[in-house]
Order: sequence, then C-alpha cells, then structure tokens
Amino acid sequence: MGLPAGLPQPGCRAAILGVPFDCGTHPFRVGARQGPLEVRRESRLIRRYHPSLADVDVLSLLGAVDAGDVALVPGRIDDAFVRIEAAAARIVKTGAVPIGIGGDGSVSLPLMRAAARKHKGLVALHIDSHTDAYPYTPDDRYNAATQFTNAAQEGLVDASSSWHIGVRGFTYCSGVLEHTRGLGFRVITIEDLLRRGFAQTVAEFSDTVAGRPVYLCWDMDVFDPSVAPGVCTPAWGGLTAREGIELLRSLSGLNIVAMDFNTVSPPQDVNGMAAQLCSHMIMEALVLLAANLGLLPD
Amino acid sequence: MGLPAGLPQPGCRAAILGVPFDCGTHPFRVGARQGPLEVRRESRLIRRYHPSLADVDVLSLLGAVDAGDVALVPGRIDDAFVRIEAAAARIVKTGAVPIGIGGDGSVSLPLMRAAARKHKGLVALHIDSHTDAYPYTPDDRYNAATQFTNAAQEGLVDASSSWHIGVRGFTYCSGVLEHTRGLGFRVITIEDLLRRGFAQTVAEFSDTVAGRPVYLCWDMDVFDPSVAPGVCTPAWGGLTAREGIELLRSLSGLNIVAMDFNTVSPPQDVNGMAAQLCSHMIMEALVLLAANLGLLPD
Amino acid sequence: MGLPAGLPQPGCRAAILGVPFDCGTHPFRVGARQGPLEVRRESRLIRRYHPSLADVDVLSLLGAVDAGDVALVPGRIDDAFVRIEAAAARIVKTGAVPIGIGGDGSVSLPLMRAAARKHKGLVALHIDSHTDAYPYTPDDRYNAATQFTNAAQEGLVDASSSWHIGVRGFTYCSGVLEHTRGLGFRVITIEDLLRRGFAQTVAEFSDTVAGRPVYLCWDMDVFDPSVAPGVCTPAWGGLTAREGIELLRSLSGLNIVAMDFNTVSPPQDVNGMAAQLCSHMIMEALVLLAANLGLLPD
Amino acid sequence: MGLPAGLPQPGCRAAILGVPFDCGTHPFRVGARQGPLEVRRESRLIRRYHPSLADVDVLSLLGAVDAGDVALVPGRIDDAFVRIEAAAARIVKTGAVPIGIGGDGSVSLPLMRAAARKHKGLVALHIDSHTDAYPYTPDDRYNAATQFTNAAQEGLVDASSSWHIGVRGFTYCSGVLEHTRGLGFRVITIEDLLRRGFAQTVAEFSDTVAGRPVYLCWDMDVFDPSVAPGVCTPAWGGLTAREGIELLRSLSGLNIVAMDFNTVSPPQDVNGMAAQLCSHMIMEALVLLAANLGLLPD
Amino acid sequence: MGLPAGLPQPGCRAAILGVPFDCGTHPFRVGARQGPLEVRRESRLIRRYHPSLADVDVLSLLGAVDAGDVALVPGRIDDAFVRIEAAAARIVKTGAVPIGIGGDGSVSLPLMRAAARKHKGLVALHIDSHTDAYPYTPDDRYNAATQFTNAAQEGLVDASSSWHIGVRGFTYCSGVLEHTRGLGFRVITIEDLLRRGFAQTVAEFSDTVAGRPVYLCWDMDVFDPSVAPGVCTPAWGGLTAREGIELLRSLSGLNIVAMDFNTVSPPQDVNGMAAQLCSHMIMEALVLLAANLGLLPD
Amino acid sequence: MGLPAGLPQPGCRAAILGVPFDCGTHPFRVGARQGPLEVRRESRLIRRYHPSLADVDVLSLLGAVDAGDVALVPGRIDDAFVRIEAAAARIVKTGAVPIGIGGDGSVSLPLMRAAARKHKGLVALHIDSHTDAYPYTPDDRYNAATQFTNAAQEGLVDASSSWHIGVRGFTYCSGVLEHTRGLGFRVITIEDLLRRGFAQTVAEFSDTVAGRPVYLCWDMDVFDPSVAPGVCTPAWGGLTAREGIELLRSLSGLNIVAMDFNTVSPPQDVNGMAAQLCSHMIMEALVLLAANLGLLPD
Repeated sequence: MGLPAGLPQPGCRAAILGVPFDCGTHPFRVGARQGPLEVRRESRLIRRYHPSLADVDVLSLLGAVDAGDVALVPGRIDDAFVRIEAAAARIVKTGAVPIGIGGDGSVSLPLMRAAARKHKGLVALHIDSHTDAYPYTPDDRYNAATQFTNAAQEGLVDASSSWHIGVRGFTYCSGVLEHTRGLGFRVITIEDLLRRGFAQTVAEFSDTVAGRPVYLCWDMDVFDPSVAPGVCTPAWGGLTAREGIELLRSLSGLNIVAMDFNTVSPPQDVNGMAAQLCSHMIMEALVLLAANLGLLPD
Repeated sequence: MGLPAGLPQPGCRAAILGVPFDCGTHPFRVGARQGPLEVRRESRLIRRYHPSLADVDVLSLLGAVDAGDVALVPGRIDDAFVRIEAAAARIVKTGAVPIGIGGDGSVSLPLMRAAARKHKGLVALHIDSHTDAYPYTPDDRYNAATQFTNAAQEGLVDASSSWHIGVRGFTYCSGVLEHTRGLGFRVITIEDLLRRGFAQTVAEFSDTVAGRPVYLCWDMDVFDPSVAPGVCTPAWGGLTAREGIELLRSLSGLNIVAMDFNTVSPPQDVNGMAAQLCSHMIMEALVLLAANLGLLPD
Repeated sequence: MGLPAGLPQPGCRAAILGVPFDCGTHPFRVGARQGPLEVRRESRLIRRYHPSLADVDVLSLLGAVDAGDVALVPGRIDDAFVRIEAAAARIVKTGAVPIGIGGDGSVSLPLMRAAARKHKGLVALHIDSHTDAYPYTPDDRYNAATQFTNAAQEGLVDASSSWHIGVRGFTYCSGVLEHTRGLGFRVITIEDLLRRGFAQTVAEFSDTVAGRPVYLCWDMDVFDPSVAPGVCTPAWGGLTAREGIELLRSLSGLNIVAMDFNTVSPPQDVNGMAAQLCSHMIMEALVLLAANLGLLPD
Repeated sequence: MGLPAGLPQPGCRAAILGVPFDCGTHPFRVGARQGPLEVRRESRLIRRYHPSLADVDVLSLLGAVDAGDVALVPGRIDDAFVRIEAAAARIVKTGAVPIGIGGDGSVSLPLMRAAARKHKGLVALHIDSHTDAYPYTPDDRYNAATQFTNAAQEGLVDASSSWHIGVRGFTYCSGVLEHTRGLGFRVITIEDLLRRGFAQTVAEFSDTVAGRPVYLCWDMDVFDPSVAPGVCTPAWGGLTAREGIELLRSLSGLNIVAMDFNTVSPPQDVNGMAAQLCSHMIMEALVLLAANLGLLPD
Repeated sequence: MGLPAGLPQPGCRAAILGVPFDCGTHPFRVGARQGPLEVRRESRLIRRYHPSLADVDVLSLLGAVDAGDVALVPGRIDDAFVRIEAAAARIVKTGAVPIGIGGDGSVSLPLMRAAARKHKGLVALHIDSHTDAYPYTPDDRYNAATQFTNAAQEGLVDASSSWHIGVRGFTYCSGVLEHTRGLGFRVITIEDLLRRGFAQTVAEFSDTVAGRPVYLCWDMDVFDPSVAPGVCTPAWGGLTAREGIELLRSLSGLNIVAMDFNTVSPPQDVNGMAAQLCSHMIMEALVLLAANLGLLPD
Repeated sequence: MGLPAGLPQPGCRAAILGVPFDCGTHPFRVGARQGPLEVRRESRLIRRYHPSLADVDVLSLLGAVDAGDVALVPGRIDDAFVRIEAAAARIVKTGAVPIGIGGDGSVSLPLMRAAARKHKGLVALHIDSHTDAYPYTPDDRYNAATQFTNAAQEGLVDASSSWHIGVRGFTYCSGVLEHTRGLGFRVITIEDLLRRGFAQTVAEFSDTVAGRPVYLCWDMDVFDPSVAPGVCTPAWGGLTAREGIELLRSLSGLNIVAMDFNTVSPPQDVNGMAAQLCSHMIMEALVLLAANLGLLPD
C-alpha cells in the first residue's frame, strides 16, 4: 500500500504488523508463514481513494504505518508467541490500532494478549468458517484451532459477549459447537448469517457489545475457496467477495481496538488471489476504522 | 477420506468406485480419466463431522468403503463399459449404494446399467448443465453426450419421471431440448431452477418419483467455471458452491440407490479446485444418504 | 468460434476485430495486448446453438466474420490509435457491427472514433468497475483511464445520455465521480445497480437513449476477480458470471452499432478464465445482436 | 514461423503438416494431440536468419508452406491413419518434403507409408530414447511403441539400413533390443552415441545409407526431461538442447525426403518449453534441408 | 513403481520407507514432508526393465516392497526421530535394505541410527551440495544441516572413511569445511569431482571403505536447480541428470546396507520434475543393489 | 541478499541498482521491468560465505548496498534513460561499482553512459546470445537490440577492444555480424567459445584490454532456456549454469568498473528460475569484484 515503514509515531492511528508464523505441523498445507510477504506484495494493487465511501486519502488521515514483520522462527510456537505479543504490545501502547497480517489462526492468541493488556473488557468478533475454540490436549495446547479456547480461559476476551460468525462445514471431531458455547461464546453459522442478513446480525452484536473495545479477527477462509483458494482449511460454501465486503462495512460504529487478518497461505493460493483479497479487506478495514474514529469528512 | 479399501462387507451401505475413463476423443480437453486419482487426493482435506448437520462419524455409520478403481483402458469404450458395469454390479449386489467417481459423463451409462439390474422402476435425477440426451449416429453411439439417450432407449430408467436440472448455455447442435423431451425426460433449465427455488423444484420431483429408486447423476459442470474450472465442457453462469450444496441437501427423503459424480477433468483444473469440491460434494452426499437411511441420531 | 476470416462482405452484420494493444506503462500488470490471441484461443470452446435463447446458427444468420488483428506495435499509442480507427472504420463502412477485442481499455477511444464517423448522436453504454473518465495531463492524454474523457471532449458520444454502469472500488485519485459527471456522464455504481436491479436500470437507460445508436463498451473487470482474474485492475466485489450474462441479455432492444470487450490480460489470467468468459460474452452479444436485428425466428 | 498457409505449389521444397493425434489410451499422460497447436504457437519466437549458418531467408528459399492440420479425431486410430497418410501423400506428390508435427510417435507410421509410396529403398533414421519397435498383440497393433515394428514388417523402410539413435532408460517389457534388432534395425544407445561422438556416428550411418532416401523421425523425448518436460514418456539422462542441435546439424549431406518431430505433449509441458524447442529444431531442420538441397549461398 | 505394500518378508532385499518429515522452520521453503507422496506419485512413470543394464524384472528379483510412510507429525523433531528410527529398524532387522524417501536432510540421522544398530563400522557416502556437517547450538541440535555432525559425534558412522561428494556453492556461515573435516570427514567439492572424474573418485572411496557397510545418502540438491528445482536449498552449478545417473552407476561393488534419497520439496518443484527424477534415481539404485547382490543374470 | 538500503557511503565498493524498465513494445514477451523485483525476491536464497572461493562475509568486505530502483515509467524510453543514467552516475561518482539489475537489454545504454562519464577508455565485455549491435531506423533508435550500436557511435566504449561473447541462434534480419563488426566489435560465437575454452578466450580478451576499465554486461539469455526460461528472447543451445559460473569466475583480474545483469523477464519465467540464477550470478560477481579489488584474505 506504500505505507511508511516504522513504528507508530504520535498521531498514528493504525499500524500494520506482519506475523510470518504458522505452527508448521500440517502434513500438506503449511505455508501461512508467507502470508505477510504475499499480502504486502499484492497490496501494490491497492489504491487510496474510494469515490463513494471515502474520497480522501484515508491512509494519510490515519497516519498509518507498516511496522514490519515480527522476527521469529516459524514452527517454534512458544518463542514466537512471546515475540508476537511483544511486537503488538509496542503498537498498542502508542494508541494505534494494530492490524496483524497472519500467519495461521494461532497468531490471534498473542495478538489478543497484547490487546487485552491495555483494553479491559475486550470482546472478540471472530469472522471465520471455524470457531477455533476446540478442546486441546496438554501437549498440544497451542495450534490454529484453539486460540479462542485459550483466549477465553485466559480471560483475554469476554466470551459471553464474543461472537463467531460464518461457521460452516465439516470438522475433525464432534462436539465443537458445544465446546465453543461451553466457553461462553455465541456461534452464528453461515446459514444463520444469511437468513438474518448481515446488517441485522451485526446490529445484534453491536447491542451486546455496548461500546466495549472489540478485537476483530478475520480468518480469510470465511470466503469461499473459489474466491480465496490460498487458505489452510478450505471450506466450500463460503462468502463471495461482495458479501465479505458488505459484512465488513456493516461493522460501522464498533470500537475496534485491534484486528488481524489471518490464514492466507500462499503455497496453496492461485495467482495471489487470497493475498490480493486480503489486502483489499485490510484497506476496507482502514476505511472503516477512519469512519469509526470520525476522521472522514461528511 | 481415509475410507477402508475393499469391497462392501455386510452392513456396508455405501461404496466409492473410481471410474478412470474418458472417451479420449476431445481435441483439447481430455483427461477426466484422472478424476478419481485427483478427487481421492483432494479428499485428504475432508473431515468427518458436521456440527449442525451430523455431528457423528457418518462414514463409520454407513460402513463406507473405497472399492478402488475399475481396471480399464481409457479410450476403449466397449471394453471399458463392460468392466465398469461389472464392477458396479458387484457393489449393487451387496446392497451398498455405489458412488461412482468419473471419468467423463459417459460412465453414467454402465453405472445405470448395473443399478437397473437390481432396481426396477429406476428414475434418474441428472444435475448438469447439459442433458446428455443428444441424438447419435450409429458409429458414435457412446460418448459423453448420449448416456441418457441410451439409458432411455435401453429402458434403464423411466424417462417420464426422470429430470435434468441445471441445463444452460450453448451447445453444438440444434434441437437438443426437443430430443431430450422426445425421450420422455423433463428439463429444468438453470433459469427455471432459480426462479422456482431449489426446495420447490425438488419437492415437485419428489412427488413425481413417489418413493421409487433414484439414480443421482451429478455432473460437476453444473457449477460455474469459476468454482469448478476442471471440467470437460465449462458453461458460464452456473451454480456457486453454496447453491450446489443447498441443492444437494434439498434431496432429503429420496430413495437414492446409486449415484455418480462425474466430469472432473484434472488437466483443466486449477489447483485441484474442481476435484476438491467434488470430494466435498461426495461427503455431503454421504451425509444425505445416512439421513435418508435413518442412520443419523435425532 | 470458427468464424470465416476476412473483411465483411455484403450481408455481413458483425465482424470481430482484434486489437492487440496496451499502453505498456503499467509497472507490473502489462499484457492486455495478448487479449485477442487468448480470447480467440478460448473461443474453441464456444458452440453455436442456445436451446432456449436461439436454437439456430446465429453466426451464420449474422454472416459474422473475423477480420483479424489490427497491425500495430503495442506501446506506441499515437500510431496505434490511427491504425485501430482505420481498421474499425473499414468495418463500420460496410454496415457490419464491429466487435473489438482488446487490448486495454484505451482501445475504445479509436474504436469510438470510427463508430462516430458514421453514427451521429452516438451514445455510450460503458459496463466497467471504473469510469475511465479521469482527468489527464497534457503529456499523458491517452491511457486506459481517460478514453471516456476524450470521447466526451471530442464529441464522439453524447455524454449526457451515456452511462457508466458497475463502478466500484478504490481508485488512484480523488474526485473521479465529480470529473465524470462534470463531463455529462451518468454513473451507476454497482451498489446502485444491484439495488435497482438489472432490468430496471437498463430500462431507464433505454428510455434515455430513445433509439439512438449505442456503443457498448464492456470492460471485463466488471466481473469479480474470482471470475475473471486476468484483467489489468482487479476490483473485488464484482459481478458473477451469471449476473454479467443477465445484464448483457437485458440489453435487448437497443440499437447497438459497435462494441468492444476489453481488458483481458492473459499474463495475469488463471487457466484462461477471463479469456474464456470474454469469448462467452461475445457469443452472448452476437445472440443479442441477432435478436435486436430481428434475425431470430420467433 | 509465419509461413504462408496452403498446399505446396511448384517450387516449394518443404511443407509443415500438423498431426493432432494421439492414441488416447495412456492413463495419465495423454495430450500429444495438442502438439501442433502449441508448436505453432511457440514458433512465434522463431526468427529467420542465422548469422553463421545461413544468413539468408531460408524459409523463402525453400518456398516453405504450412499445410495445416490433418482433420481427424484423436483416439480413432484406423480412421486417423488413413487421413494422415492421405494428407502427407498430397505433399509428397508435389515433391516437397513433408515435415510432420506430432502427435504421439504412432503418427510416424502413416507418414512413412506416404513417403514410401514415392521413395523406394527408404531408410529410417530414428532419434529417440525408445526404439518404438516393440512387439504387439493382434488387438493392439498400432500404438506409440510399435510404429517401427509395423514399418519394418510392411517393408516401408529398409530396416537393415535404418538406425535408432539415443536409446536409453527403462522400459515396460524385456527383450526390446532383441526384438528391434530381430527386425533388422541397428540400435545406438545414448551411451554408444556419446562414446563415439555425434560426427562419427552419423558418418557411419551415412556410409550405410549411401545416398538412399531417408525418413528422419525425431522424438522429442530424446532430450532430457529438464529440457523438454512436455513429452509422453520422459527418460532422464537425455540430450541437452546444445547436443540435440549439434546432432541435427551433423546430418548434413543426407537425402532426407520426409521427416517428423513428434511427442510434444503440451499438458505435461512447462511454460511451452518442449514445444518451443521443437519449433527451434524444425527451423534447424529447414536450414539443414536447404543446405542439403544446395540452396544456401556459399 | 507398483511395489507390493507391506513390511519385508523373508527373501525381501529392499524396502521403500517414506519419511514425510521436515523441520518446518524454514521461512519460505518448507514442504519436503510431501516428498514421499510426490515421489510415489511420479513413480507411476517408472518401468521395470532396462535393456542394457538389467533386462529382467529387478523389483521382483529383489522382492522389493513399499513399507509405507512413517506415522509422524512434521515439525515435531524429537518425537518424529524416534518413530523414524523405529520404522527403519524394523526393516533393517529383516535383512532388507531400507530405502528412505525424505523428507528434508535431517531424516538421515534417525535412518543412520537404525542402520548403525546392526551394521558395525558403518561408513557414509553423502552425495550432496552441502556437507550437512555444520556446527549447532544446544537448542538447535537437530536440523537439516547437522545430521552428519550428529552422526559423527554419536559414532553412527566412521567419519574418517566417510565422504561428502558434490559440495558447492554459498553457505550461511564460515568455516563449514573446516568443521566438517574436523569431524573426520573427507570433502570432495564438485570441482574436485569433475576434475578427477566419477570413476576415479569412487574408486578411491571404494579403496578406503574396503568392503565395510555403506550408508548411501543422496540429497537431490546435488543436481542443478534446472534439473531438480523442487529442493530445499537450490545451488546452481550442479549435476545434470546424466551425470547423476553415471555417478550412481559408478557405485558398483559397494556394500550398501541402507540408503535414502532426500530433500525433494514438492511446493518448490516444477511439474514434479525433482520428484520424478528422484523416483528414477531410486529405480537406478535398485538395479545397482541387485547387481551388487549378484542377483542379475550375466 | 539482505543488503542495507541506501546510497553508497564512503568505503562502499559496490551498489545494486534496480532498473525496472523494458521498452514495452514486444507483442508477447514483455515484462523485464519486473526483473529487479523478482531478482531481489529470489535473493532471499543467497547466502554469504563460499567455503572454497571466499569463506568470509564478502558483502560486508565490499560494504555493498542496495540503492533501490530507478523511479521511471516503463515504456517511456527517453525519459527513463535520463533517469537511469542519473541514478547510476550518482553511484559511479562515489567510486562504488554500480551493479544494474535489468530490465531489458536496452538499460545497458544509459548505464554505460554513466560509467563512461568517469571512466575514460571504457571497454565492454558483453556476454549474450545476441550482439545487440543491430542497425536501427531513426524512429526506433533505442530498443533492446541497439544498445551497443549506440554505445559505439556515442563513443561510450572502445568498440575495437570490446567483445561480444556467446552469440548464437537465429535473428530477425541478415547481416547482423557484419554490422556488429563494422562498428569495431569482436564477436565470439558460442561455438567459438566452447572450442577455445573459457580460460583461453578470456585470457585473449584480458590481453586486449590491458588493464583498462571494463563494463561487464551480462544478458541472462546467454544461458540455455532450460536453465533460465524467463528471458525476453530465448535461444536454445546456451550455457548451463555451471558453464556460466565458470565463465564468470574466469574474469579474474579484470578492472570491472560497472556491470549489469539484464533480461530476466518474470512473466516468462518458471518458478523464478531465471531470477534465482541471476541473483546467484550477482553474488558470484560480488565475490569476483572483491577478489579483483584484493579484498579477500589469501
């Protein structure tokens, strides 16, 4: 996007943070660690002005910066999580909204840890085809399916006000929704979402949240694999690009204090489609952020 | 999907049968013979539990097996058809539902022959962007556009109760719909289907069938080429993955005794998308089958 | 499509004209110059008969020909524009409708020049995610974002009756819609289009036009990048193939005297998808043309 | 190469003939039928002048033409062979040297039949990693491994003066060299070829031939798969491009009356490499032909 | 290759063992874990008879079997090494020669551990562009650059008789050759190898070994990246396929008791070239093994 | 390579300069403008230490920096040439050796202009399969085939001591070698080069040059297309990677004052092979430079 590199300076309201990490244990779809590289590469296509939404230079209004990638070794979970949290905390402390680019879904946990340090009463809004609130075994506590289990157990987010939206498809064990709900979360399947409509669903969430700080976690596999083929766990029947954009735009008025867009997995991508769409969604999110912060002209 | 290999044993209700055959006469889009290989490869992504549809191990409930590929030489039509029919008949005889993986559309004919041996009054439900009920010349009787002409003429299926759903696009000769209807079939174009809705359309079909045994033939080119690029004859304007899944799920209550999913053509595919979606559709079909057989818990 | 090669002869109503040109100045997505080659290549998949729209040999009814490619050097704008206009003018003079295959969007300008020579009161219908009616600087007058600015300023089309349909997404400067409207054009964003519906929108346009000659300019980037990845400037949230087909079919009754389908950029395409869809749209346009000319049997 | 299309006219010394045929029975590497299309496509890269070999317009000196593709249906062997022979015979009759572009190796048989009609005492020079002189069963007489068995048995070529050069690698049955030699052929393995050197090997062949008419059959799989990946049966350890060019150039002085370059299989190719190299080899062969015919200036 | 699946039975002399493991810590070239899958897939191209080397069914003579893949989780080094060693030990115990398919180079360590349990005085012959005998830090003892450091320190192989052949290119720290030699190993750079010739080099090694058991470790990156692009650490200037085959064939007479072919990394491969070549090299190795065991007819 | 970004500081001996320019007029192989991006991307694979050539941190010894890309618009020749020359001149002035990364071959002209400003008696060593010293017409003076014509005519280099090495293949007009020699250049075809050997050829050149400043221009198409597929004008029969490395290493002792590596054309590349090899060659060139400058320890 051509953002200036560096840590947020005073007045900066948003900072990109690449998280080139995946757990490295999938037998044949590893590679989300390359997500930040490819999302940035595709962001060359991003332009700054949106004639009907925001016909101004949103990136300048936000004073947005690109804080680079967290220095870490993919596959070394414990060490990486410490580094990710620290890097995100540096941004959070400045008051800028960190926008993480994954990396697999596991990176949301250290990012939420950093956000929760500052924002009390944090609520999660998780847009994903999976809840990632699965049970775990002691020797496999951290992976890309348990970050919301851990987030709830650590008290990082208030599970009773946090929602998982877009859940669909098959999964590797039974009882997943029960476990998720048992942690306190609300689950909106994609069928629920489409039946109620985006605006109505988000309005209900907004009422629940009541102005509290929100962590927005967007897993790119909420899109259909025909739209975003380069994800870790493709699930057919997902959102079109237009629906995803509409859903994101509907989040107006929320007090989003941190976010991440995860799960772009370039080795499985086709011509950079998932990475390209991810960079578009981040640009949409920046416009949303500017609007929510009251930075846009009337 | 990790199914056990072998022929159906007592209690087995479903058996996968690969049919690595295409006629081999297309000048530039040959290769559906590799469909079973690639659909199985992509089935590594398939998981067993569906939180809202069937939060149980459906494959175990069905005692599903993978009966391997029919041994044949692609391009040698007559010999191959004998082998395909024999292999399918072995499954049908055990009482298991054979689930053929094509191969081009021509493989449905020997598969219907095997099904018709056992199931009197068989009815076809053909989901496809083409009717495949075209006229033929004596020296080109069997190809991927005539299997339903032959099925009607051989009396394998009751054409007057059999439907072709999803028909659309251009074709290589005129009078195709007249010929199809002349054989007794009902044709629902994609415009008809979308206008009436999936549930209503299937309800009408269900009324017509009235409990008789159904052969479900699903040609992957009913999906839009953006969703399933690896097919033999792409036709723009097709179903999205979500629509296809919804259509399949709407077939509840039918007495499906045999089925096939055909026309995945890997050399024309993009990153295994058509094969991946096909394996997903087969998994959905297995859930449907389990539900229709009353195997799912309430 | 197997069209006879050559210039239109008496009785010919439509002629394909390849325009293998792009400006050659994009830093990383150049290549629309190869559009005609790839669209023709994919047109091998096109068949002639449409069972429900036109179950006749439309190409023969139109006496359609393929007039080949304009001989030019990509990147040499001034020289190429002279050659493109001359080649199109040769077709226009015969009374046949020229159907240009781009090339980037800039090629519409010389094509409109050729059409305007003969057709007084020409009106443009521009289907695109961008208006291509941007301001320019003196040393960069002609590029793929200014063809409608120039068309209006040269009086080639009556801007006050000309519409841009499908506009969406981010752009590289502010004030684009103001500039476009300042030239007299009407802009229908994709949100407007979907809200009103295709039929209603086109009916309003049709009323405005009132029988005058129409230049139809179809930029393939109006489709979503998941459907047509091989375009110059992908913009997420676009039309599906089915929507694009429906929109084109809705143009019945217009007096279309020239058209072009531009912006297929093969180096960015995936498996020829954009080129394949473009050749399909051209076939649909030929059916539309035959219908509008009253050539189809009742 | 930009050759004029059409049949050879008086004075024409060479004519390209595309043979878009393969037997269509390979389970996973079918597609040589697309060879002519892709070789022609890559021939766009071919230029006409060779500063050190022939700094003249060789194609014009030869009056070379492109006689198009044989009209046939791939996979229908008997019918196709009749058509291939007839098309080649039309060229042979004019006195021009036919240069077939395969297609799989089986196409050499009908091409040799056409050449043998006119040229008595025909000798074959077969450059290939396989002898293609395998035994056959009655119901599988014609395939891509038996064309030289049939050519010997039909007396099309004088096997006792015909050589197979470049043979290497594993094969699907034992006794292949015995069978080949039993038909009278001489076999030069790639190890023999490299030990003796190209010039010496060809000199021996030239002595054996003693001016008789030669059919040059060049199977692109004589190249290493790293050089020509798009072939039917890759065999590692083959020629580099430089060695292949050197070998071809060493054939000076032979009375080559017909030739073919076969086995480019585009679906297995990488970025058109095999097709590109094939078009280069054909250009080299045309220079060789011009030299052998005494058409080049001193 | 169509080998029977299962553990070696009495009389079996060779068993394939897939090791789908890589350390999972490379930032952008992870994926050798998929090597066994792709090497097996490409082995469909392998045929059994070599006319000049071994015109018999070598696989049957050896009673070769495919013992499947080791069950492990990539990225979990300690656990995986235990499993790999155990799986290889089961084969070694039967007297069959295990032929590991990597996986990254780290897998040679547990494979050597298994071999060393039975074979006293084991010597390593390591064909690779790197010595993989680098220093390590305590917390990073096992990776794909230290397996020979560990092998020497654990006394698995007699370093003073073990050679690294083919070393070339740049590396990530200085002093690598000193460290390797400090462990006792002999290093033959590719320049040395080419200067002396393959036969002479191997003869010297053979003299050194004097009949002791040899572990052959073949890293596919000894080939040039143009030949085997799908490796973890490409190093330009490597062997051609022909040279690699010649080098392998020159190992006649050695008492090879175990081997592995590692480092095929499918996500970086081009059209399966590295995997295809790897499967060819394994077939060559099986012929070599049969010859060394005296199983081939004279 | 992880070089520090910025202009050369005192003590810096080498500076990378990306030149993202191509003329943009090729009908189907445009894209060398993306060369710098992809060469840098692949340079992630480059490591710093060469055990036998230079087991030290060469990049640090040289104080090498990456001066970024020239800001320009591809396709706008005159403007771009001014900018390229200025950017290179800034480096030359500091005393560092500029190492241009093309871009098509035309970029060597402004780079030579910059070098010639400072270095009197400049001599060119041009490694390429084409001489790029073709005649031109007044309206097409600058393209990727005339840079050495212009360099000679402008007196930038002393043509009588400048050599073109590696010339081979077909070309688009006759008389190319005469024209090149007419300008004073010496031409060594690839056949000449291989006959004499690299060392002998370079020794002769070295004698001719006699210590004068040398501009090294390395066109990546001197490699065979199987090694470097992503070039503008592939010419079969070129150097292997090993030969290219050997040739480069043989340039020891020359007083190289500027260089460029051009013609990597990513859209035509396969898996980044040409870009990867180019980055390797640049690293080899940096080692050569360090050696020639006496920076390496004995």
